[in-house]
Amino acid sequence: MQLITLTTDFGRRDWFVGTMKGVIFGIAPRATIVDLTHEIPAGNVRVGAFALAAIYRFYPKRTVHVAVIDPGVGSVRRAIAVQTENHFFVGPDNGVLSFALAREKIKTIRQLTNEKFFLKHVSQTFHGRDVFAPVTAHLSRGVPIQNFGPALKDFVHLDGPQPRPTRAGIEGEVVYIDHFGNAITNVPKEMLGSRRWEVCAGRKRLCPVREFYQAVLIGDAVALIGSCGLLEISINGSSAEKRFSLRVGSRISVRSTLKSR
Amino acid sequence: MQLITLTTDFGRRDWFVGTMKGVIFGIAPRATIVDLTHEIPAGNVRVGAFALAAIYRFYPKRTVHVAVIDPGVGSVRRAIAVQTENHFFVGPDNGVLSFALAREKIKTIRQLTNEKFFLKHVSQTFHGRDVFAPVTAHLSRGVPIQNFGPALKDFVHLDGPQPRPTRAGIEGEVVYIDHFGNAITNVPKEMLGSRRWEVCAGRKRLCPVREFYQAVLIGDAVALIGSCGLLEISINGSSAEKRFSLRVGSRISVRSTLKSR
Amino acid sequence: MQLITLTTDFGRRDWFVGTMKGVIFGIAPRATIVDLTHEIPAGNVRVGAFALAAIYRFYPKRTVHVAVIDPGVGSVRRAIAVQTENHFFVGPDNGVLSFALAREKIKTIRQLTNEKFFLKHVSQTFHGRDVFAPVTAHLSRGVPIQNFGPALKDFVHLDGPQPRPTRAGIEGEVVYIDHFGNAITNVPKEMLGSRRWEVCAGRKRLCPVREFYQAVLIGDAVALIGSCGLLEISINGSSAEKRFSLRVGSRISVRSTLKSR
Repeated sequence: MQLITLTTDFGRRDWFVGTMKGVIFGIAPRATIVDLTHEIPAGNVRVGAFALAAIYRFYPKRTVHVAVIDPGVGSVRRAIAVQTENHFFVGPDNGVLSFALAREKIKTIRQLTNEKFFLKHVSQTFHGRDVFAPVTAHLSRGVPIQNFGPALKDFVHLDGPQPRPTRAGIEGEVVYIDHFGNAITNVPKEMLGSRRWEVCAGRKRLCPVREFYQAVLIGDAVALIGSCGLLEISINGSSAEKRFSLRVGSRISVRSTLKSR
Repeated sequence: MQLITLTTDFGRRDWFVGTMKGVIFGIAPRATIVDLTHEIPAGNVRVGAFALAAIYRFYPKRTVHVAVIDPGVGSVRRAIAVQTENHFFVGPDNGVLSFALAREKIKTIRQLTNEKFFLKHVSQTFHGRDVFAPVTAHLSRGVPIQNFGPALKDFVHLDGPQPRPTRAGIEGEVVYIDHFGNAITNVPKEMLGSRRWEVCAGRKRLCPVREFYQAVLIGDAVALIGSCGLLEISINGSSAEKRFSLRVGSRISVRSTLKSR
Repeated sequence: MQLITLTTDFGRRDWFVGTMKGVIFGIAPRATIVDLTHEIPAGNVRVGAFALAAIYRFYPKRTVHVAVIDPGVGSVRRAIAVQTENHFFVGPDNGVLSFALAREKIKTIRQLTNEKFFLKHVSQTFHGRDVFAPVTAHLSRGVPIQNFGPALKDFVHLDGPQPRPTRAGIEGEVVYIDHFGNAITNVPKEMLGSRRWEVCAGRKRLCPVREFYQAVLIGDAVALIGSCGLLEISINGSSAEKRFSLRVGSRISVRSTLKSR
């Protein structure tokens, strides 16, 4: 199987995604192409990096993951392909691959310079179609990654905001708001252990930490470890984003519900 | 062929659908996965049940249909797989499968309890990924449905609103509003026969019943038997939802255009 | 490979697209179906024609392209299938195929009249499912196009707005606004040559013509040749649609930046 995933900020309204798929099928007719998401906010490399890191590891080995959130298209930013122990990644070298790559054992990083694997005419505005789609298709067909260009020593890393342990608990922030209005924080499961906690924003207590949505009544707020392994703030049956006016970057704190001595 | 359809309320913005597909392809690499819709309103089991019932029968025999509108995830609601004469259905046992199952000849209903077919770590919040995706993949590869868990005698049924014949005609209600603003009612073709009818809301006459949109001028209202076999209220070239302020649950009546004697 | 593309105004919220795919897979189980877009504005044949013309040529030879923007469904408009030197096209004969066909060498145009290739019951409202999906599936499996109905001499053509050279430069108009808020005009690359230009709306200068987005600072406006080969007006990192209140039909002019003598 030749499995390819696409993560972009192209939306579904126009022809950008469909054009990339045409180019891929022209080179790799047996590929299976899966849309991870095309709804990354325009140019938001950080959100794209977060989404890709949340999904890619649920895919089989040797899947080729392409991420095109590429506000610097046509400028000097490099284009790269990366082989890790289990997967391939293709995209602009602007950090969009970096959260996923941080979890992987890297075998080689290649700069995409070999024009033999590009479309004949490379536009200044749509490398998704002209560079990333054909490279991905050739890679999925088994062309060795060395053929695409010279080795690089490193790629561009994005710094994610880090949660910070404090005397009272943990200081963190919201890093993603999903379709249901759940606010996903940067606080990982491992920092919580088995104590009882509650989540606050400034001085305001938002909700307790529980194991699942139904642990509170319909309409009540609850924080739980979501499917990414991160603490998320939810309303059972409604939107935490709206109720608490949360957005990406909102600062939250997690505090023990035991009285401090 | 291993054909799988997905119906969810996950939206397309986040990684939920993409993650389910990764899990499925990891187990069933030759599957063909089709998105029926991921735009069911969050947690709205009834709309999900209606959409699934409208589509599934256009799929070939032995298709596996998965519906994950699952507001009770993590609580005590059961998870089921159902084999009917022509299809397989997988989802939470909260009624989301019930409108489709009501049209089918059921062979067996199984509760999903055999953890051998789940992901190793089952989260409290995302059974689409951890339970329904892997079960679906194994089912599509031909694992006998008996292996997934014990037989159940019945599943949770949702009551749909029933149209009611009256002396003046038929009392019904709007059960779905589509993308074009067409208001689909619960009045089936069979109740109309060959008489001439008009549709009213309260005392207000909305439009005549005709055979197709073009039977009225651009901008005029018309009711016709839509592609689901139900009476729907439309504006030729515009939105009936907006013109008549219709919504799911709006009550309508269908009256003969012959003067009552 | 049997590759099929879909272009519609059905949206993704309802079951229309999913139903077409079920019908296709029932007839052509090995087909690969790609969504080009389902977000064409309801009934807007011109935008559908533009999108299809922008994408189809990136697909491999013998792909079957189906376009269902069909406000006249159920009335007297014809349904057609067209074979060109490289592709097949299927849709209503209302102009939606005409921008793509204008770029192709046409071999035969057939009216879809042979009911053997339709679903048994053809509704008055959903020929996407009842006519176009089954015809497409049979065509992709290799049924000769002659079998679907009699030859036609011509198809319905849409007139696109034509750019006009003037003494001062070129008069054109906006023909499409994409997801990023880029305003695509009808001025082709070939009309610009190598002179230096700027774009105006009425007397107001909007921006210079450059080669890529990064040629101007973040937040500044720029016009460049986009991926369709047409001049498009953009803001680096933002929306030209919003900044300049542009919409489809907005008139623009392109002027030489050399002083006129």
